[in-house]
Order: sequence, then structure tokens, then C-alpha cells
Amino acid sequence: MEYKAGHLLEKIDFPKDLRANIKETELPELCDELRDFIIDVVSTKGGHFGASLGVVELTVALHYVFNTPYDQLVWDVGHQAYGHKILTGRRKIFHTNRKYKGISGFPKRSESEYDTFGVGHSSTSISGALGMAVASKIKGELDRQHIAIIGDGAMTAGLAFEGLNHAGVENSNMIVILNDNCMSIDPNVGALKDYLTDITTSPTYNKVKDEVWNLLGKISKFGPNAQAIVQKVENAIKSSLLKQSNLFESLHFRYFGPVDGHDVNHLVSVLRDLKDIPGPKILHCVTVKGKGYQPAEVGSPTQWHAPGLFNKDTGEIIKVVPINPQPPKYQDVFGHSIVELAEKNEKIVGITPAMPTGSSLKIMMEAMPDRSFDVGIAEQHAVTFSAGLATQGLVPFCNIYSSFMQRAYDQVVHDVALQNLNVVFCLDRAGFAGADGPTHHGSFDLAYFRCIPNLTICAPMNEEELRNMMYTSQLENAGPFVIRYPRGEGVMIEWKTPFRKIKVGTGRKVRNGNDIAILSIGHQGNYALSAAEELSKKGIDMAVYDMRFVKPLDEIMLHEVFAKFDKVITLEDGCLMGGMGSAILEFMVDHGYSSQVKRLGMADCFFEHGSQEELYAEAGFSIEHIKATAKEMLKEKSSGKFMVG
Amino acid sequence: MEYKAGHLLEKIDFPKDLRANIKETELPELCDELRDFIIDVVSTKGGHFGASLGVVELTVALHYVFNTPYDQLVWDVGHQAYGHKILTGRRKIFHTNRKYKGISGFPKRSESEYDTFGVGHSSTSISGALGMAVASKIKGELDRQHIAIIGDGAMTAGLAFEGLNHAGVENSNMIVILNDNCMSIDPNVGALKDYLTDITTSPTYNKVKDEVWNLLGKISKFGPNAQAIVQKVENAIKSSLLKQSNLFESLHFRYFGPVDGHDVNHLVSVLRDLKDIPGPKILHCVTVKGKGYQPAEVGSPTQWHAPGLFNKDTGEIIKVVPINPQPPKYQDVFGHSIVELAEKNEKIVGITPAMPTGSSLKIMMEAMPDRSFDVGIAEQHAVTFSAGLATQGLVPFCNIYSSFMQRAYDQVVHDVALQNLNVVFCLDRAGFAGADGPTHHGSFDLAYFRCIPNLTICAPMNEEELRNMMYTSQLENAGPFVIRYPRGEGVMIEWKTPFRKIKVGTGRKVRNGNDIAILSIGHQGNYALSAAEELSKKGIDMAVYDMRFVKPLDEIMLHEVFAKFDKVITLEDGCLMGGMGSAILEFMVDHGYSSQVKRLGMADCFFEHGSQEELYAEAGFSIEHIKATAKEMLKEKSSGKFMVG
Repeated sequence: MEYKAGHLLEKIDFPKDLRANIKETELPELCDELRDFIIDVVSTKGGHFGASLGVVELTVALHYVFNTPYDQLVWDVGHQAYGHKILTGRRKIFHTNRKYKGISGFPKRSESEYDTFGVGHSSTSISGALGMAVASKIKGELDRQHIAIIGDGAMTAGLAFEGLNHAGVENSNMIVILNDNCMSIDPNVGALKDYLTDITTSPTYNKVKDEVWNLLGKISKFGPNAQAIVQKVENAIKSSLLKQSNLFESLHFRYFGPVDGHDVNHLVSVLRDLKDIPGPKILHCVTVKGKGYQPAEVGSPTQWHAPGLFNKDTGEIIKVVPINPQPPKYQDVFGHSIVELAEKNEKIVGITPAMPTGSSLKIMMEAMPDRSFDVGIAEQHAVTFSAGLATQGLVPFCNIYSSFMQRAYDQVVHDVALQNLNVVFCLDRAGFAGADGPTHHGSFDLAYFRCIPNLTICAPMNEEELRNMMYTSQLENAGPFVIRYPRGEGVMIEWKTPFRKIKVGTGRKVRNGNDIAILSIGHQGNYALSAAEELSKKGIDMAVYDMRFVKPLDEIMLHEVFAKFDKVITLEDGCLMGGMGSAILEFMVDHGYSSQVKRLGMADCFFEHGSQEELYAEAGFSIEHIKATAKEMLKEKSSGKFMVG
Repeated sequence: MEYKAGHLLEKIDFPKDLRANIKETELPELCDELRDFIIDVVSTKGGHFGASLGVVELTVALHYVFNTPYDQLVWDVGHQAYGHKILTGRRKIFHTNRKYKGISGFPKRSESEYDTFGVGHSSTSISGALGMAVASKIKGELDRQHIAIIGDGAMTAGLAFEGLNHAGVENSNMIVILNDNCMSIDPNVGALKDYLTDITTSPTYNKVKDEVWNLLGKISKFGPNAQAIVQKVENAIKSSLLKQSNLFESLHFRYFGPVDGHDVNHLVSVLRDLKDIPGPKILHCVTVKGKGYQPAEVGSPTQWHAPGLFNKDTGEIIKVVPINPQPPKYQDVFGHSIVELAEKNEKIVGITPAMPTGSSLKIMMEAMPDRSFDVGIAEQHAVTFSAGLATQGLVPFCNIYSSFMQRAYDQVVHDVALQNLNVVFCLDRAGFAGADGPTHHGSFDLAYFRCIPNLTICAPMNEEELRNMMYTSQLENAGPFVIRYPRGEGVMIEWKTPFRKIKVGTGRKVRNGNDIAILSIGHQGNYALSAAEELSKKGIDMAVYDMRFVKPLDEIMLHEVFAKFDKVITLEDGCLMGGMGSAILEFMVDHGYSSQVKRLGMADCFFEHGSQEELYAEAGFSIEHIKATAKEMLKEKSSGKFMVG
């Protein structure tokens, strides 16, 4: 399928073409064409949608005014950078976005010199851009501009505040563009959101600010003394007229706006003026997620964040309805099960940092609004807040994506594990996350959590196990409890099984066998089981053990395994270095066993995006790889030293 | 030695005694006695000093006004909680503070019900106290008060901001006391600091605020409609007179102050009033670190943060001057060496999150102020800012204590490692940190970093190695580089050796041997060597290998080791689960070796405070333990399966 660009967009391969070939009066039309192009591709290829539509005008204006890539744009999170990608050399391959071996859904340094900073996780842009700005200052590149574009949702994360606090005292060329659309993926929350709404809706404030801004914009062009004059005017207005300090001005930023983020010509003129004003500045742009596509503008911004395929003419989101019933997503099992548990145990509360829909905690938030909390993009706070709740005897279920949990590592160590508090961490998107790629794969959790004392760490092989682990985690004195599960569907149609306590630190043998054993953790056990069944047709008899717990290990079961088998495979959807397989090696050597062990999982590299199945294959732990590994091990001589590869 | 309390302090074992036995007019005298008691103990026993002296009045006022422990105080960081400890049942054991088996230098839940939240790392108090406040709301304890006491330094960390942003929209009983002394351990930095100075020194602002506060304090006592009236008054004053919004008020906190944090009677009256005002409130207290002890007040607050022993009468800090020259601290080797390197390589810059003195980056900050940055208590920002600098070809040396690096784990993964940027992380205080205890031990870094692709991880056995690792880390294309080293002295008197490149991923054999091999990492190699020398007198011939790199491993050397030795000890000042020893097991099993390996390091538990030597002994990896392990292994039969324990 070919994607046709409009007659203006067609002329632009790189931003220099935009600056050379497009008149200012043509910019609105170009924006329409860019918007149409995004709609065309995303409606048929999938991907993130609302965020990029919301910044079409901003994207065009930024590349029009600034000398990119010499001037540096840092897009926060990067969901919104589709227009940027299309204008910076990737229009013709944009339909490969988020596909295996295609371009990344996020800005990425290795992909383009226009992608100044790789993103995916939120709230890094101010710190990253400040680093660039300070480097330019050190290198004497005094004309170089550095622009961080950050959403109001991302602004709630502590990292963004830390960046502002430092940027305010570094006199470098730094513009922060606050893209205020009142949304994270779900509606934005917290006090800052209210504050931003207040300042965008206060007419007096806006009027005075506009006047200040107009004056400053003009004066700053008058040569050498401009800075001093600007300062004077600003102070004068502030002290006499305004007497109002703004949150960002408190941090030494000069605040401009709010401006309409969909008026491209006004944006161009504003940005031109800002270029000439030295020091840290913030431009507050009000935008609408999904702008310019009617169904997304009037519909749910959460649904239109990444709607999947849709009919662009009708706005109908295309849902493939399977003929037979399908297993539910682990996410929904979590969402429904926490409500069931919380109905029985009044101590249970639910916490999510800005992922109510993605994690399905939304189900609890609707059922029990007083006992469930969306704390915004603030993983650190989510964990320490949970610790505070737990000190009072409540049992917080804190649901965080595995890769985002990296944001709150110290809080887990210092506030939860060290105090041995009964907080239940549900690590969603553990293992390969799919199309979001390396920033979002939950590759490291087993390794980075395994070393922390007091933690119990488990992973369910199916829906029933997830329910039982959740049930077990909230029983008296369960301590800090980690349950990791992947993105997507489980394996059970009839998943609503009665809750049953699991003895902590016990695995299960799910298939007998005599030739070789495979020890798996989590959902991957289903692949082990399939491999074993296929192998049995070839006369290979593989036992399958579902470890269930990475910590504590089921030592009784492991003694059984190592006493019986001199060939053992371990299998995990996670990194090999320090992961579950490594834990089993520790057990084996500590106890004087010396079986041959082959560990399957992620090698020591970052994996790109693709479907989960594509990535299992690439990483070497698909069903085919499991079978091949078993066959190869059984060919090798069964004892003594041998060499791999 | 006995520590005598004054006649008022003597009457107080617990806060109920304070509330029952001490008249308001006696409070100033009690503060003097409490201050004297702290001076007596700390001058002779050591510990943190300035912070606790600065909050004597606040501590007394809080326990006087609030019904502790039902009302909950959360002390941020906890250096300042000595007065609190003395008033809450620990006066008579206070002289054991920070000693092995003595009380902790920080609040700790297992120590006292008055220690509501374990601390040590900064900026957790708002989130923790909010969790408690929300729990109280859920449990219907509507009269219960929750007070976070946080310094202006701690307020710069993102976690504190995340907490404020959430607290602002939870209508719970929450008071934040901003203890503003303009200091972290070093002077506080950043835009927020300037802002706080502005509001404390603006007379108009203060005057109006005082009036507001007085009105509110009084009105709020007038019965059922108090809240509505207070709201009205506040709005009226704000809109007509003040027209000034405050950073904290932007986040829905009601801001009171600034007040003199050393006027205990005024504090009592202010806190009584605040109790009756619902919702989130912030009280801005201005205090002086070291208050009431003249040498600390006029001297350097950084020096008096934890001065060691001193003569309380003269203010002279007691320095034991050794007769013979001693090896330098690793910290100082870092500080001097980075300056030497930066003189040769103009790309080098230095970054510390609020630890210029502790890390000795101060040496560079004095020599090269334009190329070294104290970014405040903001580890996340320190790392992402470093990543931004590195994208521009600079080589940032980002020095962070090992346990604080837990705060920036995601930033290392997502912003540095994934982008393969040449940022050099110098992990100070790796391994047992000593008297600061479990919050500060750098126990987990080898395990939590080993699993991250692209990282090079090494640890020097001595000063020369540290210098060479630093030198190597800044050579072309070195990528992300982690150098970990412990708190305290190295082993070389003549440490200023010429820089020499180390081949990445190579270890060194530091002692020949034939019976058994020990593989060590970092400074601990010196203990291995001592053990080997002592063992040789007993006829045991132990080879000693300094691994140098945990990642990549020296595979050539390891093949040599496992081909030659069927008994191997690994040694590390870090956790065993997933640590260096675990990496060696992975190598061994992957390559089909089956030597007997005994791993020495930290078992899977949190270790309390004590001297490093005491802790090595407790954890089982002192010189004596190394010797005993070697002897025991050589007694066991040398091949085949065997059982430990």
C-alpha cells in the first residue's frame, strides 16, 4: 500500500526543505496534509495517534523556526513525534513504524540525527536538553538552541521537577514547551493539573501575561542592552501590576503563554521571539489530543491514544471478534481479581502511576473509587505512598509496568523491602513488551529484584495462578510481594477459578519426564509444555517444572530435579544475567550438583521492537528453540566437562 | 561514661511526660537542656550534629503539641532526629547511637513506635506521611495528624515534588514542615533555594502572610463554620491585597510562615493553630544548622554536619594525626585524579547530586567551577543530565553513592545504557558503608547493574587501579562505565602513579598458588591477599586473582582458573544473589566446568550498622573467614557431588 502525501508535504524530505520551500501562509495547509498523512498511516498500520495529532502545528512551527538538527529538539516520551519523524527523512518508511525491523515508535538516536535523545519513558526531556544546552555553553556554541517538548502529564514526574530546578540556575539556551492537553494516556491528575487549568482560564492573568510577553518579544530585539531592558520591564510589571508569581517563575524560568497550540502562524511568531530571549524559558501551549480528527476529538482520548486500526472515514475502530471464546488478558484478570479480593479484605487498596487503563486498575477505580489511586506519572511516589499505607496495616497493590518499576527501584529497596512491609507489586508488561521496543521491554526485573532481601518474587503460568498469587500476597504477614506477568492474553477460557493459597516458595511439576528437565518461570511455561509435547512425539521425554517462585526458590523441588536429571534447561522471558536461571545455578553449585544446564532467556543486549512471538524467536527461546536445545543437549555426552559453541 | 540530663529533660522518658510535666514557660529551658545533651553525647561519641541542633525547638514543639505516637511524625532523611530519639524512650541508650549493636542513627520502625517510617535516603517523608494520612482517612481516624518534616535540600528531589502534587488533591490531615536551613550536607543549590530565600526575605510578603496567618489561626477556632470562614478570609485577602500565588499554594497546599524555627513558644502556638485547619498545609520554618553551639553556628555547616569527636568547650575538632603516612581515601584519589584527567581532556565534566564534600568532587569544583556541577539532591536528574552532556561528546563523570544510585536506576538503563553513551559512573560507598547502616550500604550495585547491556563494570583493588580505571573510562568509545569503590582508605602511600590504560575485561593474577584459587573484586582483594599469605604459613598455597571487571568478565583468565583449580572461592563486598560470584557461576556452567565454588559476600538479608570491619566479620567475609573457607574446602573430597552444611 502506498501512502500519498499532499502537494506541500511531498516537497519536504527534511526540515531544510520545509524552511526553503514553504511560505508562512502555506503552513496551515501543510499542517492539514501532515495530519492527513498521519491519519492515513495510523488508521491502516496502527500506532499511537492522539498525541501526534495534537502537536502537528507545534512540530511544523518548531522545524520552521529552528535550525534543526543544529538546534536540538527533545521530545518527551515520544508518542507525539510522528509528525517529527515524517518531516525528518522518514516519510517514505513511516508505514514501517513499530513493525519488526521497521522504524521505532519513539525518537531514537541511531535512527536519525534529528532524534537528539532516545525516549520512551516519560519526563527525561528537560534534563536531557539541559545537558545539551550546558554542553553547547561549554563548547562555545552560544547560538545553539535546545528545546524540550513535554506534556503536562510528564511534568508531574519528579525527574521533570529536578530538571527545572537545575535549569533555572544554569543560564543556558533552553526552552521548555509545555504541551498542555490535560492528559497522560488517561486523564491527568494531581495538583499541578489544576494549577495549569487555573492559569489557562484566568482572563486577567492571561491578559497581563500577554502584554508582558508582547513587550518582551519586541524589546529583546533591540541589540546589546536588550537583556537588561527586558529584565527591567519584566520586574516593573511584576512588582506594580501583577504581584503574582508563577510556579515556573518561582524556579527562575520565564513563563510565556498560554498560547493556542493549534495556531501555527502564531506559534511561528512566538517561537521566533523566544529564540532571542536568553536563559531558561517556558512556553505554555494548550493543545487538544487527537486535534483535527473529529472522532478522536469528541471521543475518549484514552481510547484514541493508540486505537489500533480504524476506518478513517467513519471513525469506527476495527475490532477483530474471534469466533471462539479467547482467554482474557492478564491485565483484566488482575483488574477483576483485585476487586473480588478487595470486597473480602477491606485492607486492600489499589495504586497506579498513570496507567489505570493499561493496567486495568480502572476496574477497581470504578468499583471502589475511595480505595484506588491514580497518582499520576510518579512511580517513586507510588511506591513510597504504598509503603506509608502499609505501615498502617493496609495492603496496597501497586501496579507498575516492569520497565517503569526501574523508576522506583530505591523506593522498593529503602521504603518497602527494608521495612518488610506488605506491599504487593504487580509488575505488568514483564518480559518482551512488543511494539514499544527496548524502552518498554520488562527484561530486567527478575535480576534487579532477586538481590533485594525480604522480597517474595513470583510469576504465574496462567490466569488461575495469577489469581492465587494475588490471593496469597494479601494474607497475613505476606511481606513485600512481587508478581510479574506479561502483556496480553493468558491461556484459560474459564479463568474465574476459586482463590486458593499457594505455599510461598513452592513450584509445581506440570509434566513428568525422564530424559531432561526444563524449569520455567511464568507464562513461558506454556511454551515449555508445548515443546515437551512435541518432543515426546520424537521420543524425547522432557519433564516440565513451573518454578512459580524465583524467590524463595523451591529447594525441595530443585533437589529432586538435580538428583534425577543431569541435563536441565531453564526458561524465562527475561535477561539471563542474574535472572532465574542464574538463581538456579547458584542453588546447584551451592549444593554441590553439577548437571549440565542450558539457560534460555534474553542475552546481554537490548532487543528492538516487534511482536512478542518475533522477539521470542529472535532471542532464542521460542518453542522451536526449546526443542532444539533439548535435542542438542541429549546428543552431547552426559557428564564431565564439555564446551559450548 | 555517664551522660547527665538537665532537671527538666530528666523528667521526660516519653513525650507524654513532656506534655504532662513541662509548663509552656519552661520549654525554652528544656530546649537548652536537650541541646546540651546532644552536644555532650555527639562530642564524645560522634555522629551527626548540625541538623539535630537546628531542630531542637521544632522537635520539642511537635511532641508538645501533637499526641505522638498516635499523631505521626515522619522525619525526612533522619539526621535531624536525635532530639526526637532522646525524647522518645532512648535517652539512656543514646550514647550507643551508630555503634555496632547500638541504636540506629536514623528513625527506624523496629526501634520505636515513635519512628513511624524508616529513613536514611532523602525526600521520602511527604509520600510516606501521605500514605499514613490516607490510611487514617480510610480507617475513619479523622482526628489523627500526620506531619512530614523535610529540609529545603530534600525538597529539591523529584520524589518530594511527586508527593506534594498528590497530597495537594487528597483532602487528608497532612502538615509538611519545611525546615529551611539553606543546606543539604553541602550548601543547597538550585532555583528552589533562591525562591525560598526570596520569600523569607520579602518584608511585604511576610507581613501580609503573617496577617493572613493570624486571622486564620484565630478564626479557625470558632466552631462548626470555621472552615468556610477561613476559606473566605483567605480568598478575600489573596484576591484583593496579595495577588500573589506561592509555589506551594499552586499545588493546593496552604502555606504558612516563614516562622522562626528557634522560638519554641511561637512554634507551639503556630502548631496548635495548624492542627485545626483541615487539608494539606505547609509550615515554612527558618532554622540554623548547628544552632546554639557557637563554633558550629559560625563555622562551616558542612564540617559540622558530622564533625567526628570534638572538644565541646573549645569547639576544637579532634583529629587523630597518625605518626606514619597513611594511604589516602579512595574519595580523595577520585577528586584529585579527575582534575588531572580533566586538565588533559577538555571533554571531561564532573557531576554530583549534593555530595561535593562526601565524594571529593569539591576538589574539581574549586579547580574548574565551569566544568563541575552540584545538581542538588536529584540523582535521577544527575544521570539524565549526564546523558544529555554525553550526547554532545562530553565525558561526564557522575559520582553517586552506590545506595543512592538506586534512585536513578531507570535513568542509567534508559538514558545512558540503551543509548550506549560514554558516561562514567563513580559509585562511592560501594559495599558496607559503616555507621550509616542498611539504608546506606552499597550492597546491590553489582547485581542490579550486571544485568544491564552495554555497561562496563569494574572495581579497583587499590589507588593505582582506581586511577587507571578512571583513565581508561574516558578514552575514545569507552561507553557507559561503572567504577565502584568503598568508603575510606586504600592501601598505597605513594598513590599518584602515572595513568595507564587497562584493557577492558581483563583481570590480574596477583598471587600464584596451586591448591585453591580465590577470585576477588575491588578493595576486598587486599583481604584475599592477606589471607593467602597467612595460609601459606600453614602450608596452603592459594592463588589470588583480582577480577577487576565484573562485566565483561576476563574469560581467558577464567578458563585458566577453572582448567587448573577444582576449588575456587569468590569474594566480593556486595550481595551474593546475582553478584560477581554469580557471574562466575554463569561462566563456569556455560562452559561446562564443574569446580567446587564457595561464594563469599553478603547473604540475602539487610545488615545493620557498624564499622566496616565489624560488618565484614558479621557477613562472613573477613580475612579469618577466607582462611577458614579455604581450609574447609581443602578438607572436603575434591570432586563429584557433595553437600554444603
